[in-house]
Amino acid sequence: MSVLITGSVALDSVKTPVEEHRDLLGGSASYASVAASFFAPVNMVGIVGTDFPKKYVELYGAHGINLDGLQIADGQTFRWSGEYEWDLNNRRTLSVCLNVFETFRPDLPAGYKKTPYVFLANISPQLQMHVLAQVERPKFVVADTMNLWIETQRDALAALLGKIDCLVLNESEAREITKQTSLIKAGRQILRQGPKYVVVKKGEHGCLLFADELFFSAPAYPLEDIRDPTGAGDCFAGAFAGYLAKTNRTDHDSLRNAVIYGSVVASYCVEAFSLDRLVTLTRPEIDQRYQFFKLMSHFEVG
Amino acid sequence: MSVLITGSVALDSVKTPVEEHRDLLGGSASYASVAASFFAPVNMVGIVGTDFPKKYVELYGAHGINLDGLQIADGQTFRWSGEYEWDLNNRRTLSVCLNVFETFRPDLPAGYKKTPYVFLANISPQLQMHVLAQVERPKFVVADTMNLWIETQRDALAALLGKIDCLVLNESEAREITKQTSLIKAGRQILRQGPKYVVVKKGEHGCLLFADELFFSAPAYPLEDIRDPTGAGDCFAGAFAGYLAKTNRTDHDSLRNAVIYGSVVASYCVEAFSLDRLVTLTRPEIDQRYQFFKLMSHFEVG
Repeated sequence: MSVLITGSVALDSVKTPVEEHRDLLGGSASYASVAASFFAPVNMVGIVGTDFPKKYVELYGAHGINLDGLQIADGQTFRWSGEYEWDLNNRRTLSVCLNVFETFRPDLPAGYKKTPYVFLANISPQLQMHVLAQVERPKFVVADTMNLWIETQRDALAALLGKIDCLVLNESEAREITKQTSLIKAGRQILRQGPKYVVVKKGEHGCLLFADELFFSAPAYPLEDIRDPTGAGDCFAGAFAGYLAKTNRTDHDSLRNAVIYGSVVASYCVEAFSLDRLVTLTRPEIDQRYQFFKLMSHFEVG
Repeated sequence: MSVLITGSVALDSVKTPVEEHRDLLGGSASYASVAASFFAPVNMVGIVGTDFPKKYVELYGAHGINLDGLQIADGQTFRWSGEYEWDLNNRRTLSVCLNVFETFRPDLPAGYKKTPYVFLANISPQLQMHVLAQVERPKFVVADTMNLWIETQRDALAALLGKIDCLVLNESEAREITKQTSLIKAGRQILRQGPKYVVVKKGEHGCLLFADELFFSAPAYPLEDIRDPTGAGDCFAGAFAGYLAKTNRTDHDSLRNAVIYGSVVASYCVEAFSLDRLVTLTRPEIDQRYQFFKLMSHFEVG
């Protein structure tokens, strides 16, 4: 099955304590689509300006991503720049220029409207809803969000939560949206706000999957050196949705596996800037790290 | 096999945002010994004053703990008081009165000297070394430590690291001892300082077990409400060492299981103040929660 992915496409400038790079391919839809493409055909929805480098369009193409829903509009591509603190756990947004993104209201190509799996990567909840409303009876809808929308668009986000199957968000967002310090309480509280599944991403501490009759705790891959954390969450959710689309199953065992595959692709993402590591990533590498996840979380009464 | 446990025995006064209790049974040896007693016979080494309540001696007795090594000295029992912040993740020590603990230099009872498993719970590294030196060729030695010793007794701690099989410490201690922000780097760096195994406890995020050819990530039990975190780490390590003593095996599978049993007992500990929950804890309850740990960390290609 295929997966529809919408979100931002951006040119990023990223500074870490040791490196700085400009005009990198970024944006939630970029990371998520390439991550998902390792598992399933991707229908991408996004917008770029006429300045968007052809090599990045070719990069999507090399991953078989359907670009019928990628608009090229007069003007500049969305730009984001950010800086990470010394331990890479916190980042500061230095600038955001929406550019062509400001007036983006996509009409889905006809060929996209029956896509069974949907991942609404991080963009405003109104835009996520606008895209979702055009998909005919999707089988499983995953959405991401961010602190900005929690703070400024609480009602739109609440409406979205009633329309999706799974919300993926990070630790601080889960605490912010629920005003709970306990992540366990937070995860369970979000379940009561609509989605059947909630994934709370905890960075170096792995992630948690909540459902009414399910609690799954996934470890993080033990990376010693992270080069650039940008896009890890988008890769996680893209691979998560892509894996579900590939198997066309959404039972608990498939969701657990999807969480692990999401963690695997995210762990590769942060080994390099932008999508550089994803571009060279192979399916055997994904499978190898999946096996490592099994080894590092396995135990049984001896 | 039996396990020798030394550490502090204390009367604690503990304040959380919602409750305050005084003169509770506490101390690293108390928590660790009772936790270990669910798995193996315990030889306890410690000191109390003449004020130490008889009911607490009876509590140890009810858990079959051998008290030949528990000195009752003229004077007052060691006292500690602390206060937890609103989210229970940080605590402040309000007072410490060493009392009889100040001059404690135990001579092991003859019956203790061949104990094959040893857990040196949190006391000064000199005292840990003094006890360890009296044990004849122990099979497996586990030690805990704390930020105070890392800051004030680095050399004694370094010497101890060369004499033990496994160091158990928490996240902030691992970072402090190695001056590494990455826990993965920290864990591996401590391995190079002596112990064959390192366990890094991460509270609500579970724990990590490191060895040369082993990396194991254990989840935390999803507790919604923690009543008093005091002693959780001691219970973890006590149950960990007790399980190894019970099975008399220290292969990787046994260590993984020991980490899970440690996590199970710690998760019960924090449900009540002092050792109140451990006193009512049953072996079926331990096994039930062990099964839950399996469920919450299990995945497999579907």
